[in-house]
Amino acid sequence: MQSETKNILESINSPADLKKLDISQLPELCREIREYMVEILSHNPGHLASSLGAVEFTVALHYVFNTPYDKIVWDVGHQAYAHKILTGRRDEFSTLRKFGGLSGFPTPAESEYDAFVAGHASNSISAALGMSVAASLKQENRKVIAVIGDGAISGGLAFEGLNNAASDPNDLLIILNDNDMAIDHNVGSLNQYLVHITTSPKYNRLRYNMYMRMRKYGLIDEKHRGQILRFANSLKSLISRQQNIFEGLNIRYFGPIDGHDTAYIIRVLRDIKEMKGPKLLHLKTVKGKGYSPAEKDATVWHAPGKFNKQTGELIKPDISDGIPLYQYVFGETLVELAGKNEKIIGITPAMPTGCSMNKMAERFPSRTFDVGIAEEHAVTFSGGLAKEGMLPYCNIYSTFMQRAFDEVIHDVAIQNLHVVFCLDRAGLVGEDGMTHHGSFDLAYMRCIPNMTIAAPMNEHYLRHLMYTAQETPNGPFAIRYPRGRGHCREWRCVPQLLPVGKGRLLREGTDIALISIGEIGNAALEAAEMAGKEGIEVSVYDMIFLKPIDEEILHYVGKNFSKIITLEDGTVSGGLGSAVAEFMTENGYTPRIRRIGIPDEFIPHGKPEELKRMCKTDTESIYSAIKEECYKIKQQKQENQI
Amino acid sequence: MQSETKNILESINSPADLKKLDISQLPELCREIREYMVEILSHNPGHLASSLGAVEFTVALHYVFNTPYDKIVWDVGHQAYAHKILTGRRDEFSTLRKFGGLSGFPTPAESEYDAFVAGHASNSISAALGMSVAASLKQENRKVIAVIGDGAISGGLAFEGLNNAASDPNDLLIILNDNDMAIDHNVGSLNQYLVHITTSPKYNRLRYNMYMRMRKYGLIDEKHRGQILRFANSLKSLISRQQNIFEGLNIRYFGPIDGHDTAYIIRVLRDIKEMKGPKLLHLKTVKGKGYSPAEKDATVWHAPGKFNKQTGELIKPDISDGIPLYQYVFGETLVELAGKNEKIIGITPAMPTGCSMNKMAERFPSRTFDVGIAEEHAVTFSGGLAKEGMLPYCNIYSTFMQRAFDEVIHDVAIQNLHVVFCLDRAGLVGEDGMTHHGSFDLAYMRCIPNMTIAAPMNEHYLRHLMYTAQETPNGPFAIRYPRGRGHCREWRCVPQLLPVGKGRLLREGTDIALISIGEIGNAALEAAEMAGKEGIEVSVYDMIFLKPIDEEILHYVGKNFSKIITLEDGTVSGGLGSAVAEFMTENGYTPRIRRIGIPDEFIPHGKPEELKRMCKTDTESIYSAIKEECYKIKQQKQENQI
Repeated sequence: MQSETKNILESINSPADLKKLDISQLPELCREIREYMVEILSHNPGHLASSLGAVEFTVALHYVFNTPYDKIVWDVGHQAYAHKILTGRRDEFSTLRKFGGLSGFPTPAESEYDAFVAGHASNSISAALGMSVAASLKQENRKVIAVIGDGAISGGLAFEGLNNAASDPNDLLIILNDNDMAIDHNVGSLNQYLVHITTSPKYNRLRYNMYMRMRKYGLIDEKHRGQILRFANSLKSLISRQQNIFEGLNIRYFGPIDGHDTAYIIRVLRDIKEMKGPKLLHLKTVKGKGYSPAEKDATVWHAPGKFNKQTGELIKPDISDGIPLYQYVFGETLVELAGKNEKIIGITPAMPTGCSMNKMAERFPSRTFDVGIAEEHAVTFSGGLAKEGMLPYCNIYSTFMQRAFDEVIHDVAIQNLHVVFCLDRAGLVGEDGMTHHGSFDLAYMRCIPNMTIAAPMNEHYLRHLMYTAQETPNGPFAIRYPRGRGHCREWRCVPQLLPVGKGRLLREGTDIALISIGEIGNAALEAAEMAGKEGIEVSVYDMIFLKPIDEEILHYVGKNFSKIITLEDGTVSGGLGSAVAEFMTENGYTPRIRRIGIPDEFIPHGKPEELKRMCKTDTESIYSAIKEECYKIKQQKQENQI
Repeated sequence: MQSETKNILESINSPADLKKLDISQLPELCREIREYMVEILSHNPGHLASSLGAVEFTVALHYVFNTPYDKIVWDVGHQAYAHKILTGRRDEFSTLRKFGGLSGFPTPAESEYDAFVAGHASNSISAALGMSVAASLKQENRKVIAVIGDGAISGGLAFEGLNNAASDPNDLLIILNDNDMAIDHNVGSLNQYLVHITTSPKYNRLRYNMYMRMRKYGLIDEKHRGQILRFANSLKSLISRQQNIFEGLNIRYFGPIDGHDTAYIIRVLRDIKEMKGPKLLHLKTVKGKGYSPAEKDATVWHAPGKFNKQTGELIKPDISDGIPLYQYVFGETLVELAGKNEKIIGITPAMPTGCSMNKMAERFPSRTFDVGIAEEHAVTFSGGLAKEGMLPYCNIYSTFMQRAFDEVIHDVAIQNLHVVFCLDRAGLVGEDGMTHHGSFDLAYMRCIPNMTIAAPMNEHYLRHLMYTAQETPNGPFAIRYPRGRGHCREWRCVPQLLPVGKGRLLREGTDIALISIGEIGNAALEAAEMAGKEGIEVSVYDMIFLKPIDEEILHYVGKNFSKIITLEDGTVSGGLGSAVAEFMTENGYTPRIRRIGIPDEFIPHGKPEELKRMCKTDTESIYSAIKEECYKIKQQKQENQI
């Protein structure tokens, strides 16, 4: 951070303004962009390190290509902040990830410069390929560029895209932003390959000598850049004993080159821009580039929260009340269980820090597997482990588990294998927004035969359920729990064996029954207390299990109540509310049922409180719902009192 | 087919018997296995061509490895008939794919030799890796072998497995059964690579010369087979300008070798068996090998139905009544629509013949994309096309669409893109069984916001819906329809624009309302007629649309009926029955609702009629359900008549 001026950046309101600059001005622009990002993100948290690493090539792309006619498809999109700042959203950038403000990811609904939705990894190549084929069919000379990180490229979807790229008519350009880490460090052979390919000095010497010799004999010439390139890649394979995967897939490979040398990137982009057929440019970048605290520890600075931009000191959220994150409790509990049961294996697809699987990785490294961004593999691999007698705890964020839906059915549930699925970040996740909410898991898991599905109301129940899952070798067992802090200061209770399929009565009343699952039970209980003060007597049940569901409770409620409210941190279509409605109508009970949950629409980003209000899943809204449903009862009681 | 004797095969009741044979006897055994397979499959249809191609290496695997202690994980498992015959199931082989008989795929529930479930492609490497890691953790010297075809290896899940193989502690052996076709011919660069790698005579000459020279100079010796191999692969890359993808992923690569030379395969397997780390043996096989009609046209002989084994003549099912397959109507209708609307693009992941997309491929090759086994890519690619104004008709079997669940949400529904999802083989599929039933689509699609979901009751409605989907540019539109023959001889009606979200009354009655969606409506109608003859007056509604659902019908039914039966060819958890139960309980209606559909369990294989009886979704069962529900009404009426 050399200076505080943003003279150039202030003149850039669109890529057209950027193109007016001389190449020599671009490094200063990059500095200003970086400074602006650090400034804003220091008090408005976001994904810092990835976007810092992507500044130069983002400038280069908009300098060389004719956006938005040309399309840049960002993968994941953590890296796209410079893109947002350069495409007319500089001043709104301070609203990033706020309710009603800019999304943290590229979003076509937000800007014509955001070519496709980004959020879940590895989709960019397939989407860009579709767009490029469309351009070709429409005979438009539109360029389409997919920008993908070295973490996301390990996902199966990315491979399917790469494998199809050379078969279809397209001129796709893939930018591989290789910073050797996704959020945590990358895993997998492809990653080893990407590291290896750049670190062979022997290769560089030999390449030069061979090249000069072949030129001398007229075997190769400057006109045939492709020929040289392929020759170089083959040679690289020969020397490094590493094969070029992209060339193997008939995608022309260029690089690796320095991803922070704007002028050089521009030169290469201009060179390859008009080349026919699919091609990949491999950029080596530094995550956190240009802000030294972030360069030193890019994992911490992936999404650092608030910080002091001068000192680089992280401003920790106030947790003086001692209430932990669910994630913390998960990590600690898994270590406890794994310490006593050597069959337990921890599996996470690229989220060891986020879900706290890193705790188990430290204690039991040989029993912990970070498989990279590869949710499908995580699940099928868990199936293989379970088939041979291991007990996998496979932790995948609820939203990403959608990727492995088929594998849950085919590779685990059909064989009734004992795999514990830990669905972190279930329900509304807050600032990550539309692409990341864990809205659907209760619905998509409930239709799977053999599946046990549970959700804890607090940290104690998370521990109970993790323990109960271990003790219940009766097929797959899914535990879904929210992002963020729980409710129990004294969270480290003795884990209890819960009866599977049994709920519990939290509060008794005769006017209306609240049937709840998971975290939202706390709000239900508060709302019931509030209603109680107004004379409405509310029963509250925490079902704990969605499947098998506690039919004893449901029979009791069916017989004794004419009004039910169901509550869940998930979609209202197909989850708990549906299960209760199915049960009541099937068994001849006739209550009115109001389903409270995430409505059947895509929910934007914002603070969890704001989103809960929007979805009417917050305490106040539940309280209002109780009052509405019991209006007549309340009226009557008041009349009686008068 | 040289002779009719099965002297050797009759002595083989387990792999232990196989191991007693001399290697010189194995070709004759292979001949007998082949003959037996052709014999049985000629009158009991199954997947012939794949299994014919896999005979020699199957024999070799069981000859060399210690199954079932060592584990063979078959991918898809079309190829595993010889495996079944050799592992104690020779005599039961004639029950293949029959209700109560052997499954068409490897199934652990059936035999300890079947190491893992097979059915959906590309899962073998991840599952085997899990099993191999488990062996390593348990310090068991168990060998695990994944057998995967060149079609299945293009799936993203397979790549995720390959990418993780070199990171984990394992001695996995991957057998790549490369016959250059999955069901139809393969697509994708990986496939081109597999073809190319074997067809460079220049390479073979040079390899030999270079090898001799390097030996002479002491640069290489016989002891270091791995070294030689890697050298050879690098050289191969240099000459063929093709890179070895597997070596790029740090998996030792061997081959390609002749997959029909049993003795040679055994020699190689013995050579590499004890090698540490993951390795891949590439076998070139001929699909349909040893039965000349199948060798000539392996696509037709993939699953040929009944045939005359002497003449190779296919015994076509009797279709003299002129009633077509839904698949035929889909293919014809798509060509009609595409002929009038050049925005229409056809996309199928490896099933052009099965779903009849081949018709469009013939007429409009530049607008038809077979993307190979890559369902995720198929959906995201469709999203990219739709984003740029094309209108993709993306045809994926219902069961395989599970693979792309996340992509449907993330890459299509969030952006509300106009993609038409054609879910072929929805509901019970019959002989393919447990892994292949399209049971879940109504449930997993219904929870997705923005999604329109429809199912035709017959071929006319399939055509109406395909046309209506084109005319309704209001986000994703899913049409699910069954496998097999429809109901209309005169199927080529004029496609009508249906009002989205509107159902229709098929039959009016006052005792009970049947609310149905899709094909099962025909059985509902028949059952209602039968009940009508007994004086039970049944209303039957064909909802056509699950989402948006016709609330006008539901209000009417809620107001006028105290008994409802819902009917769907899908799971009873989360689909139409749930939607109706949600609606009724939410709106204060109090009918009893009986949900008829696929029960919440995995359904085995058998004829569709047998399975429908099992699930009680057949006409007779529906009729019984009507009678049960209306028992009292009927009683009363009879009493009144007396």
